[in-house]
Amino acid sequence: MNEVSLQLDTRYVRDERLGDHGLTEEQIGQLTPRTAEILQEIATERKQGQHRFRDLPHEKPQLDEIKQIVEDYRDSTDNLIVLGIGGSALGNIAVQSALNPLTYNLLPNHQRRGPRLFVLDNVDPVYFEAVMQLVEDQWDRTLVNVISKSGETAETSAQFLIVRDRLIKALDEEEARKRFVVTTDASKGTMREIVDREGYRSLTVPEGVGGRFSVLSPVGLLSAAFCGIDLDTLLAGAAAMDEAVSNPDPQANPAATLAMIHHLYMQRSKRIHVMMPYSQQLRDMADWYRQIWAESLGKIRPADKVCVGPTPIKALGATDQHSQVQLYREGPNDKVFTFLEVNEFDCDTIIPMAFEGVEAMEYLGRSDEGTLGGLLSAEKRATELALLASQRPSLTIRFPQINERSVGEFIYLYESVIPIMGKLMAINPYDQPAVELGKLLTFHFMGRKGFEKSPMEG
Amino acid sequence: MNEVSLQLDTRYVRDERLGDHGLTEEQIGQLTPRTAEILQEIATERKQGQHRFRDLPHEKPQLDEIKQIVEDYRDSTDNLIVLGIGGSALGNIAVQSALNPLTYNLLPNHQRRGPRLFVLDNVDPVYFEAVMQLVEDQWDRTLVNVISKSGETAETSAQFLIVRDRLIKALDEEEARKRFVVTTDASKGTMREIVDREGYRSLTVPEGVGGRFSVLSPVGLLSAAFCGIDLDTLLAGAAAMDEAVSNPDPQANPAATLAMIHHLYMQRSKRIHVMMPYSQQLRDMADWYRQIWAESLGKIRPADKVCVGPTPIKALGATDQHSQVQLYREGPNDKVFTFLEVNEFDCDTIIPMAFEGVEAMEYLGRSDEGTLGGLLSAEKRATELALLASQRPSLTIRFPQINERSVGEFIYLYESVIPIMGKLMAINPYDQPAVELGKLLTFHFMGRKGFEKSPMEG
Repeated sequence: MNEVSLQLDTRYVRDERLGDHGLTEEQIGQLTPRTAEILQEIATERKQGQHRFRDLPHEKPQLDEIKQIVEDYRDSTDNLIVLGIGGSALGNIAVQSALNPLTYNLLPNHQRRGPRLFVLDNVDPVYFEAVMQLVEDQWDRTLVNVISKSGETAETSAQFLIVRDRLIKALDEEEARKRFVVTTDASKGTMREIVDREGYRSLTVPEGVGGRFSVLSPVGLLSAAFCGIDLDTLLAGAAAMDEAVSNPDPQANPAATLAMIHHLYMQRSKRIHVMMPYSQQLRDMADWYRQIWAESLGKIRPADKVCVGPTPIKALGATDQHSQVQLYREGPNDKVFTFLEVNEFDCDTIIPMAFEGVEAMEYLGRSDEGTLGGLLSAEKRATELALLASQRPSLTIRFPQINERSVGEFIYLYESVIPIMGKLMAINPYDQPAVELGKLLTFHFMGRKGFEKSPMEG
Repeated sequence: MNEVSLQLDTRYVRDERLGDHGLTEEQIGQLTPRTAEILQEIATERKQGQHRFRDLPHEKPQLDEIKQIVEDYRDSTDNLIVLGIGGSALGNIAVQSALNPLTYNLLPNHQRRGPRLFVLDNVDPVYFEAVMQLVEDQWDRTLVNVISKSGETAETSAQFLIVRDRLIKALDEEEARKRFVVTTDASKGTMREIVDREGYRSLTVPEGVGGRFSVLSPVGLLSAAFCGIDLDTLLAGAAAMDEAVSNPDPQANPAATLAMIHHLYMQRSKRIHVMMPYSQQLRDMADWYRQIWAESLGKIRPADKVCVGPTPIKALGATDQHSQVQLYREGPNDKVFTFLEVNEFDCDTIIPMAFEGVEAMEYLGRSDEGTLGGLLSAEKRATELALLASQRPSLTIRFPQINERSVGEFIYLYESVIPIMGKLMAINPYDQPAVELGKLLTFHFMGRKGFEKSPMEG
C-alpha cells in the first residue's frame, strides 16, 4: 500500500474547549453523505476527461523531454530566468524554496545543485533591471524559460521582448535563439506562433490544466529539474496522495476532510483562512496556496448571484507570532488556521548553555527541547493552544520531513481539495471570469489594436 | 512650508459608481468632529509625554552614536546579521528592500553601499544554518546586531546564544565581544544585564516606544545606516509628515483621513484591509504595515468585550492580479484596498518593438506607455477600475519617487494613523495582551524555571 507521509490533525477543530466555535461529529456527519456523492461525481468526471490535473503524476507529460533539456543545457547554464506570472511562477518559486536552501542564489556555483534561479513574476522596472544587471555579462550562460499558455499575458510578453532584445545584442540572433525554452500551448496562441517562427525549443502546457493547477506539469517542473530537484519522487508523492484523496469515504479522505471543515466554517462566517507554516522553507508554499484558494473559490455563485469565497492569508511561524497573533486571538473570530509543521528538520542547531544564573538565557540551552527545531515546535504548540484558549480553531498538516515526497503530496492534496470545495460551494473552481476586465483595460491603456474603446464604457 | 511628497488619493472611495459601497461627504462629515477632537486629544497627550514615537524624527535619539558605530565598523564588516523578530526586524527589512536593490546581497562588495544584510527573524534551523554557512569563514568580518528590549524573547535569545558561541569558537572571547552591538533597554532587563556583564557596545530602545513603532529609532536605523541609507533624509521625511498629520482639520490631515475612511468601512463590515504596492521595492513595507495594523488594532474592546479589529493583508501588484484579483472582484465585498503607486521609478525599461504583424506583441513596444514602468501603471489603473466596476473601494498613496524622503513620510504616516484609529475604535493601540499566553506557554514547554505549571491550567 502506497501510504502518504503527511498527517492531517483535526483535533483543534473538534476540541470541546472551542465551545460554539468547534465542529461536532454530528455536524461533520451531516455533511458527509453529500461529500461522498461529490467524491463519486469527481471520480466519474475524471473518467470523462475532467479534473485533468489529477492525471499529471501518472501521465507525467514530457518528463523525459524535461530531463533531456536539463541534460542538454546544464553544463552551459549558470543562470535560469523564468518569465511567468501567477500560476506560471508561484509553483516554481514554492518548490524551489521548499527543496533548496533559501540562500541558494548566494551560494557559489559548486555548492548549488544547478544554475541560479530568478523567477521574474513582476514588471517592476527597478527589480527587473537589478536582475538584468546580475546576468549582463553572462548571457551566453543564461537560459530563459518563458511560460505563457497564450502569449496574451502582457507582463510576460513585455519581459520576453526585452530579454530577447538583450540576448540578441549580447550574442547574436542564432545564439540568442538557443537560450530560450518556451512553455506554451501545444498548438495555438501567440506564443506557439512565435515558437514556430523563431524555432525555439519548447514544452507544452497540458490541455485542460489551468495555470494554478500546473506546477506538476512542464510549467513547474523544468526549473525544478534544473535546480536538482528529483521529479520522479515529487510525482511519486503526488501519485501516493492521489490514492488517499480518491478514498470514497470523506472522513478517511484528507482532501474531503479539509473541504468539509472549511465549508462548515465558511457557513459560520469564518471566511478568512490562514495558512501558517512553521518552516521558512514552506513559506512560499503558502503563497502558492493563496492563489489556488483565492482564484478558484472567490466567485459569484451562479444559483443566487451571491459573492462567495474564503480569503486566504499566508502567515509564518514563529515570526508572525510577533505580528499577527494579537489579532488572531483578540480580533474577530472569523478565521480558520492551518499550521504546517515539520517533525524532523534537515538539520538542527543545539542552543548552547551560557550565562549561568541568568535564567532567561540558561533555560534555552538546558531544556530537552534545547535546539532551534525544538524551540520552533514549542512555539507552534504554544500558538495553537493560545488560539484554542481564545476559541479559535486550527488544523495541522504535519510533514515528517520536507523532501520531494512530502512536497509532492502536499501540492496534490491542496489541488484536490479545490474541486470538492467548488462543488460544496456550488461554484466553478476552474474559471476566473473576474480577471478578464483588468486584462482588457490594460490592453486598452497600452494601445492594443482592437481595444480602442474602454471596456468600462460597457 | 515643509510640504510632504506623498499624495493620498481617495477618489475611489467616493465615486458614485460604488453605489452603497461608497462613502458620501455626509458620512465623512459626520465623523469629522469626533476625529477633530481626537486630534486635539493626541496633541495634548503628546505634551504629556504620550505617543512617544511621534518625537523620534525630532529628537533623533543616538543618531550620532549610530553613525559613529557605522564609521567604526564599516571597514571591517562585510556581513551584518540582525537578530530580532517582529518589530525588531520588520522595519529593518522594509527600509532595506525599499531603498537598496532587491538583489543587494547578490552584488559583489564594491557594488554595494554596505555589508550584506541578513535579518534573521525566525528560528527555523534550516534557514538559520543556511545563513551561518555563508558567513562561517568570515566571522572576523561579520557584525551582529542583537535587538531585544527585554532579552526575554526566546527566539532572539536562542539565536544570540548560538551566534555568540560560534563567534567565540571562530575568534576568541575578546574578539567575539567586539563583533556585537546590542540594541536594548537603557537600563533594565536581561539583555542590558548581559551587555553590562560582557561589555558589548550597545544602543538604546527609546523609552515609551513600542517595538512596532520603533523603526525610526536605533532599532531600525543601525542596519539602514550600515547599508548606506541616508538617515537624515529619512528622518526629515518623517518630520515633514509630522506637520501634515498634526493638522487639526481631519479632512486636510492624511492620517485622520485614512483613519476615518477605514473606520467607516469597518462599521460597514469591510474588515479586511489590503495593502497592494505596485512596486517590488515596497512589498516588505506592506509586511511592516501588516504588523502595525494587526497588533495595534486587533483587540477586545474594553467597553463591551467585543473582539474588534481589521485583518490586514499584503498583496503585490501586478503579480497578485494573477492570484487574488478574481477573489477581490467576485468574492465577498468585505475589503478596502490601498494601492501604493510610484510616479517615477529609479530606472525604466523600454519595451522594444518586435514581431511585426503579431499585435499581441507589437502593441507593447508601440505604445506611448511602452516601458515596464508604463505597463505597471496601466496595470494598476486597470485593477482599480476593475475593482470599481465591482463596487470595491480603493485608495491610492502615490510616491513621487521611492527615496529616503518618501519612505520616511510613509512610515510616519502609517504610524500616526494608529492612535487615531485606536481612539475611534475605543481600544488601546499600544498594548498586545494576547501575545502573552503564547510566550508563557513557550517558557513552559522549554522548561524555564518558574513556569513549571502550564498556563493553560489557568
